[in-house]
Amino acid sequence: MELDPWQIGDITDYEQLFKFGISPMAAFKEMYSDNRYVRRGMIFGHRGFEKIDTAIQSKRPFIMMTGLMPSGKFHFGHKMVADEIIWFQRKGARTYIAAADIESYLMRAVSLKDARNIAIEEYLTNYIALGLDPKKTTFWFQSDYKPEYYRLADVAANEVTFNEMRAIYGDITPNKIISALKQVADILHPQLPDFEGRLPTIVPVGADQDPHIRLTRDIASRLNHIYKMELPSATFHRFMEGLRGGKMSSSNPKSYIALSEDPKTARKKLMSATTGGRETAEEQKRMGGLPDVCAVYKFYYYHLVDDDKEMQKLYGECKSGSILCGACKQRCADMLEKFLVEHQKKMGKAKEAAKKLAESR
Amino acid sequence: MELDPWQIGDITDYEQLFKFGISPMAAFKEMYSDNRYVRRGMIFGHRGFEKIDTAIQSKRPFIMMTGLMPSGKFHFGHKMVADEIIWFQRKGARTYIAAADIESYLMRAVSLKDARNIAIEEYLTNYIALGLDPKKTTFWFQSDYKPEYYRLADVAANEVTFNEMRAIYGDITPNKIISALKQVADILHPQLPDFEGRLPTIVPVGADQDPHIRLTRDIASRLNHIYKMELPSATFHRFMEGLRGGKMSSSNPKSYIALSEDPKTARKKLMSATTGGRETAEEQKRMGGLPDVCAVYKFYYYHLVDDDKEMQKLYGECKSGSILCGACKQRCADMLEKFLVEHQKKMGKAKEAAKKLAESR
Repeated sequence: MELDPWQIGDITDYEQLFKFGISPMAAFKEMYSDNRYVRRGMIFGHRGFEKIDTAIQSKRPFIMMTGLMPSGKFHFGHKMVADEIIWFQRKGARTYIAAADIESYLMRAVSLKDARNIAIEEYLTNYIALGLDPKKTTFWFQSDYKPEYYRLADVAANEVTFNEMRAIYGDITPNKIISALKQVADILHPQLPDFEGRLPTIVPVGADQDPHIRLTRDIASRLNHIYKMELPSATFHRFMEGLRGGKMSSSNPKSYIALSEDPKTARKKLMSATTGGRETAEEQKRMGGLPDVCAVYKFYYYHLVDDDKEMQKLYGECKSGSILCGACKQRCADMLEKFLVEHQKKMGKAKEAAKKLAESR
Repeated sequence: MELDPWQIGDITDYEQLFKFGISPMAAFKEMYSDNRYVRRGMIFGHRGFEKIDTAIQSKRPFIMMTGLMPSGKFHFGHKMVADEIIWFQRKGARTYIAAADIESYLMRAVSLKDARNIAIEEYLTNYIALGLDPKKTTFWFQSDYKPEYYRLADVAANEVTFNEMRAIYGDITPNKIISALKQVADILHPQLPDFEGRLPTIVPVGADQDPHIRLTRDIASRLNHIYKMELPSATFHRFMEGLRGGKMSSSNPKSYIALSEDPKTARKKLMSATTGGRETAEEQKRMGGLPDVCAVYKFYYYHLVDDDKEMQKLYGECKSGSILCGACKQRCADMLEKFLVEHQKKMGKAKEAAKKLAESR
């Protein structure tokens, strides 16, 4: 299986990735059961999480770095990453967040101006509304940062060959090389002497970003002759499926619900989602539903229901056929609406802080 | 004929380049006869010099941009570029000088620290001693500059394909792509709104740099959808030949005399240079010498004798056999020694200003 971090594709078999050096996250399930995504297996794999575990357990400093690709609405798929960021921040991580505006310009044709607005109004505002502490966060745009950062991206070009890039990214173009080296600098520059210095670094990402992580780890080890750095660690999460199956993607509005979506519209979108229901009510009562392929169920599971017992109950009700899709959707839509109304109040308050954070570097 | 800007090679037939879009500089010889290199044909070609001519004649603003590759001693081959820079500055150019330390790191394995020292102690100090006005000069290191500059280099990656890069540079590596895009940003960023805005730009370079100029002109025209820019103009000079024939190159100490060279050592180097002398004194008296292939003659012609009548006299004496190489070398060495002693006094005074300029950005 080949992963292309710049294609929107489905990963159907996450277990496969264990063959490529990603380790199962299962070993850390118990220790970090306070994290819903770890506990329920959405964060399924990692590279080098042991270092982060040690840092957290011994209360030693570590870095959390992640990037956002400002190319559309901030939706429930993105919320996963936001929740992970906030969780690591609360575990003591020194928080670094990149707006990958050069990448979205080169790979998705989003203008730098649009990217800037999307990063602030969609991403940062939601991050803060969800609980990110902006005062403890370093934020930058790839297009507007410090010379040390650009220097690292440029110097890193010496540590990777054309053939290695091709092996990782397939067809190579100048803009892919620039984007990849920017990502390398995004992840590694917090370890430069002018920033935090050498420290374990965790990068929470979707499984499709593993090629970038591998490249960055290789380059970090080769940069050893100039900069002593810890190889960055990563956690990998599954993607949240979209409302009609497939990936939830900001380029397909029918696939997602945005966190800024009008609650009534969101309700409607959810009501028309693809469920795991049977052909007829009679059949469903007899055989039960299929929660594992149900987009509505995913909303409970990923976001709306944190209590595992409640979750089990919901699952049981569906499987046994004791609740049908119509009623289940109504219940989910109620929870969703309530969440959005409350969240959007917080967004209103977070706006100014988001702007300030964007101008802080 | 293919030009590789990253190989130290000899260009033996400059006229050939006129087939590749470089125009002869002859048309401007009379107008700019105050410039020795133009007058004597060392600056033999140009692209788009008409724009610069118009700006100079009408006293309108224009930009002069050039780069230095900090990878060794500043020698008499480099002095040509310095003289050109100073000449354009005195003609009113807004002066921009890049220290291409990222390029020297990626293409010549010079550490950034060494590059920094070489740029200041060798290049800037000599530029100022030769007459550059540091107060009217913008100077930067590729590794340490403003975000707008890096943004331009990154955005430019979208405007060039892999195949175009390969056609220009041959085998493509990530570090060649980074180096090429940095050069593009070096040349074009002075035209950004935060700098001078759109203005004619002259780039005085050696003939081997034409591939960079072509690429930069192509990218400038394609960037039109975001930034309105004048296509940069360029003048091209011949290389000064080395003391033993071939190119004068900082990687071969026997080929050059540095401007910081101890005058006695310089004298010795010149005394053992390859001349256009004949096998025997008798033969030379009878047939005359060959000044056109004589390294000593090149020192008079490029640097030590500005007066054309005196130059003609020297040429005649050699051709007629009325002076032999020993005496001619002594005379040249006297002039060289005098120049170096005086120049090195100026260097002593220029040091502080060079440091200041390097820290000014």
